[in-house]
Amino acid sequence: MDSSRLSQQLVFLAEADQLKRVLRRTSLIGGDRLENTAEHSWHFALMALTLAEHAPVALDLTRVLKIALIHDLVEIDAGDSFVYDTSAMADKAEREEAAAERIFGLLPADQATEYRALWDEFEAQETSEAKFAAAVDRLCGMLPNYKNCGGSWVEHGVSAARVAQRNAPIGAGAPALWEVARGWIDEAVECGWITSE
Amino acid sequence: MDSSRLSQQLVFLAEADQLKRVLRRTSLIGGDRLENTAEHSWHFALMALTLAEHAPVALDLTRVLKIALIHDLVEIDAGDSFVYDTSAMADKAEREEAAAERIFGLLPADQATEYRALWDEFEAQETSEAKFAAAVDRLCGMLPNYKNCGGSWVEHGVSAARVAQRNAPIGAGAPALWEVARGWIDEAVECGWITSE
Repeated sequence: MDSSRLSQQLVFLAEADQLKRVLRRTSLIGGDRLENTAEHSWHFALMALTLAEHAPVALDLTRVLKIALIHDLVEIDAGDSFVYDTSAMADKAEREEAAAERIFGLLPADQATEYRALWDEFEAQETSEAKFAAAVDRLCGMLPNYKNCGGSWVEHGVSAARVAQRNAPIGAGAPALWEVARGWIDEAVECGWITSE
Repeated sequence: MDSSRLSQQLVFLAEADQLKRVLRRTSLIGGDRLENTAEHSWHFALMALTLAEHAPVALDLTRVLKIALIHDLVEIDAGDSFVYDTSAMADKAEREEAAAERIFGLLPADQATEYRALWDEFEAQETSEAKFAAAVDRLCGMLPNYKNCGGSWVEHGVSAARVAQRNAPIGAGAPALWEVARGWIDEAVECGWITSE
């Protein structure tokens, strides 16, 4: 065993614990507390595993799961940027870039490179795996809002048009899941939770 | 798309959200709140991914990750059984069996069978993947206690001998990680957080 290598990995894994402290804008189903990014990442990975058959092409499932597990670690430093907050989104890339450098940099060099490449792959949205992961990530964010009668959409006065625009990547990554998402948005309008425009 | 199949999957995934409400006995690193089982499952999966090279034999990593993601879902119904609470451990198997039946039963039959088989594999502790997963699960439970100056070991008056006995499966699944765990236990005794017997 290379003990210095293992030590670096354990420092990274202890640091990862901090992701449990990063709060998102969506609540748990039931609405009584905000969700944190660590539990979201688990739900995202479970959702990717369970819905993989709905991807439009055959996927490398292991790579999708790796992306789900590591893609939000940058939020330890950069925080969760609320997707409907234009000013927070403006310097998101810069903040997350610095975070990726520091956090993946805790690992042995080969793993730092691998995790960074997975994060870059997700951000670039070019491979089928990255597109499917993004689709599932968005659907996972929509689920509690749909189940909570509009949840953070209502709280922040977001229209159906903006929800649809924001979540359009679901259509690019998994058309079958986009049908589901469109149905949820239509229902949110019909129920009067959100307005169409 | 088979919409009834997708509907069943979404019911299962919404139900899975409840795992974020199941509290474990260990705290986050920093000690200010208990960890829930959903965020633990994410940490466990990330740890398995990062430490896979320390398994004594080559593993099917995808199966290890699947086990990490689904193995604790039974706690939605059965709760987290504190490992040092003998009475809670007594009917654990029965409670978890009923939970597995109900929760995996929400899925389409083929996926229910697959997830159930993964859970059974983990419980049976016969394959290299199940043994490695158990080793990482235990190490993941030890990490916050070690980082929190003994954490729940101190709170519940658990001796080093019991911690070692409880976590011995780490040795069976990943000898290199057992060296780490033994070092943590020794340090906990040296620091006076726990007694040796």
